[in-house]
Amino acid sequence: MYKSEQLAQHLKQLIENKTWKAHEKLPSLRQQVERSGFSLITVMNAYQELEAQGLIYSKEKSGYFVAENQHDSAEKHVAINHKIEINSIVFKYLKSIQSEQIIPLGSAFPNSQLLYSAKLIQTLGQLAKQRRSYEQTPSLPPGNYELRKIIAQRYAMQGIPTDPSDIVITSGGLDALNLSLQAMTQSGDYILLQQTLFYGAWQAAERLGLKVITIPEHPVDGIDLEAFEQAILNYPIKVCLMMLNSQNPIGFTVSDEIKLRLAKILHRHQIHLIEDDVYEELYYGNKKPLSMKYFDQQNLILHCSSFSKTLGAGFRVGWVYAGKYSENIQHIQLMSTLSVNSFIQNALVEYLSHRHYEKHLKTLRSTLQRLKKQYFNYLNTHLPTQCTVDYYPSGYFLWIELPEYLDSTLIYQRLLEKKISVAPNILFNATMQNKNHIRINCSFEINTRIQTALEHLIEDLQQQIDLHLEQHE
Amino acid sequence: MYKSEQLAQHLKQLIENKTWKAHEKLPSLRQQVERSGFSLITVMNAYQELEAQGLIYSKEKSGYFVAENQHDSAEKHVAINHKIEINSIVFKYLKSIQSEQIIPLGSAFPNSQLLYSAKLIQTLGQLAKQRRSYEQTPSLPPGNYELRKIIAQRYAMQGIPTDPSDIVITSGGLDALNLSLQAMTQSGDYILLQQTLFYGAWQAAERLGLKVITIPEHPVDGIDLEAFEQAILNYPIKVCLMMLNSQNPIGFTVSDEIKLRLAKILHRHQIHLIEDDVYEELYYGNKKPLSMKYFDQQNLILHCSSFSKTLGAGFRVGWVYAGKYSENIQHIQLMSTLSVNSFIQNALVEYLSHRHYEKHLKTLRSTLQRLKKQYFNYLNTHLPTQCTVDYYPSGYFLWIELPEYLDSTLIYQRLLEKKISVAPNILFNATMQNKNHIRINCSFEINTRIQTALEHLIEDLQQQIDLHLEQHE
Repeated sequence: MYKSEQLAQHLKQLIENKTWKAHEKLPSLRQQVERSGFSLITVMNAYQELEAQGLIYSKEKSGYFVAENQHDSAEKHVAINHKIEINSIVFKYLKSIQSEQIIPLGSAFPNSQLLYSAKLIQTLGQLAKQRRSYEQTPSLPPGNYELRKIIAQRYAMQGIPTDPSDIVITSGGLDALNLSLQAMTQSGDYILLQQTLFYGAWQAAERLGLKVITIPEHPVDGIDLEAFEQAILNYPIKVCLMMLNSQNPIGFTVSDEIKLRLAKILHRHQIHLIEDDVYEELYYGNKKPLSMKYFDQQNLILHCSSFSKTLGAGFRVGWVYAGKYSENIQHIQLMSTLSVNSFIQNALVEYLSHRHYEKHLKTLRSTLQRLKKQYFNYLNTHLPTQCTVDYYPSGYFLWIELPEYLDSTLIYQRLLEKKISVAPNILFNATMQNKNHIRINCSFEINTRIQTALEHLIEDLQQQIDLHLEQHE
Repeated sequence: MYKSEQLAQHLKQLIENKTWKAHEKLPSLRQQVERSGFSLITVMNAYQELEAQGLIYSKEKSGYFVAENQHDSAEKHVAINHKIEINSIVFKYLKSIQSEQIIPLGSAFPNSQLLYSAKLIQTLGQLAKQRRSYEQTPSLPPGNYELRKIIAQRYAMQGIPTDPSDIVITSGGLDALNLSLQAMTQSGDYILLQQTLFYGAWQAAERLGLKVITIPEHPVDGIDLEAFEQAILNYPIKVCLMMLNSQNPIGFTVSDEIKLRLAKILHRHQIHLIEDDVYEELYYGNKKPLSMKYFDQQNLILHCSSFSKTLGAGFRVGWVYAGKYSENIQHIQLMSTLSVNSFIQNALVEYLSHRHYEKHLKTLRSTLQRLKKQYFNYLNTHLPTQCTVDYYPSGYFLWIELPEYLDSTLIYQRLLEKKISVAPNILFNATMQNKNHIRINCSFEINTRIQTALEHLIEDLQQQIDLHLEQHE
């Protein structure tokens, strides 16, 4: 056994037998060197090992502290991830499904035939002919003023008073998340994510070298507020990043009541939230679900959204409601992406100034609703009884739960050989605690090609289940 | 005096009296703690202070080393910058000159009336009408294949064998620089820049937390090869970032002979170079200057360029010749900007597939040459005799040298009150060693507005010089 392991073992006992209590400060590295007689390197390695095990946590310039007892918190399933490594997996996945030959059930993007409305294309066509559409210089942060004004008006219509100066235009929604996260954190900070969440959030955490605390989903409320508050109390969390509306990949939308309670917790602890709300417009009901931003009285929430899911992801135009963090975000933007294509911003201003967008959204919503119902009915009828799928009235994803003994990554790999893509768990959960879910994109009309793909999926699941049952008879 | 200062003072003497020789390893922190009796924090602070003074340097996982004696290297003016803080200055500057009311002599962008050719706008107009121009999903890294193929062919025509897979499309040239630098470095690494260089390079260094070694310009060769090789020998430089063609802001183009010698030094020491070559097409002569990439036999050079200076900066389309670093750069891209507007990429493919681009470039070059000559002749005739301006046959910048007692930042501020912008030294030199230069954009036709601006500039300079001479009579 290495010396550092010896020391770590010894310290672990002190924590487990509660000689050292939760949130108690550990001896400094220097003190520990003197106390233990081990070298500085040995002490550092031991502390880092304990941190990796989630037994202690570090605060910048303050040292190390005992984490909440694992047993105490186990019932709430708060998990710590010290080093995120998901980008390579996502990279390989996206490359594997990129070809047009692949049936895109695993795609993150809505069927493009439902986007890029005729009016939008007409607007782009007309503007593209005109020299004045190409601004003299690229639009600097925070982006096109008219576009920010229109976005601000849309917030205002939802009961969120907004000034154009609150908005920063970004290169799509992912850029909005990245910039917000970078503005609020430094390498080594703790952030909080939902346990199962859009891979872009995990990638951003990896890029910025952040430690991730996760809270589990709640079967009814969507978000487990008790686990959430406990995580906030137990860890020095700099910022949370969550999806509350049409959550990707699961699909649920958190109720207004839960959102209000979440807002109260945020305010009570003065915790910031980056709200990823890119599916906000894809609700099926009569009333648009409120964003968390609606409940924000103290500028604690950075609301990120984009036109990628409603007009087209190829435009790369998103935004963040940055409020008082606007200048900070612009500074980071100036050092990285600089600005957003100015022609597209001009074209969006022209298009959004008319009623086209609302009409387009209405059509888009009803089409997605019709398609999702069709997929749901089909899957609900034909999936093996051991699989379940929930219907949530928004967006274009279905999240299929498989028996626990199935590994969705293997299912993805086998279907890919048949030129069919599905999105496995591994993309949405860097902790890899659960592997028995797949996400299905249901924004494509069920033609022969899609029908065949669904049949292959169901057949593969049935085979794997049968195989398992045979082996365990 | 703090303990750490005491210790630093003591160690400094050991270095200065050559008890410790250049590149000798210092005692480890732990050894120094034992040897000196000071605490770990004190020793760390002392080492960091010596590093900040450039007396020692650090190598990751290897410890601290004595730097080349300052006296020995002083004649070559190699400088170290441990913490770059330029972004806020650039941010304020760009915001201050953004209004269309401001006469844009300080702009970095070429006059947009010379870009966005009629044929290009026609192409955009035709494609924008067509649904097929909007790809199904955003084009993932490395970007549109056809566009990469065209770019690869253009390299091949210049004698640089290139495969489309060598190229990664980026959101403009600045994104190309940022991605390349991020792929090649980690926070705390040393990089080498030219002493006076485009602010984007400094901003990238700041963003990534890099230490910057600078080498001075050479009055004849452009780059001082002796200083360059000395810097490489003296510091653990991870990568260099330089402009060799139509250097921004100075304007010089390094000769083929010097480039070949530079390439030999790079190869001898196996040092990577990120070559910022965004002005490559704006030469006035009959033959396009070679890029450093041309001399690269070992894939040590990442060549960055863009369409911003020839077709329009609003498009945000650049690229990097990444070669074997392509996948690494794509990984970083997937975690940050994700992709580049797919419609614009499609439109560029269409436009570049015909001979329009070459014709457009020919017109652009001759227009810029005519304008630069006009500006140069005017300034050379009317500037106070204490000011000098050199004519380099490329690009659209003139770099005016003022008497050393003038501060270009004050000149910029005074002219801004008259709604005239000029670009002061401070934007191009984070060390702020020189303050007596301004950059003038000469891509605008000399109409009454520009004429008045030039007169105001000359008048201000004359007044300041007169004032100085009066005070020092």
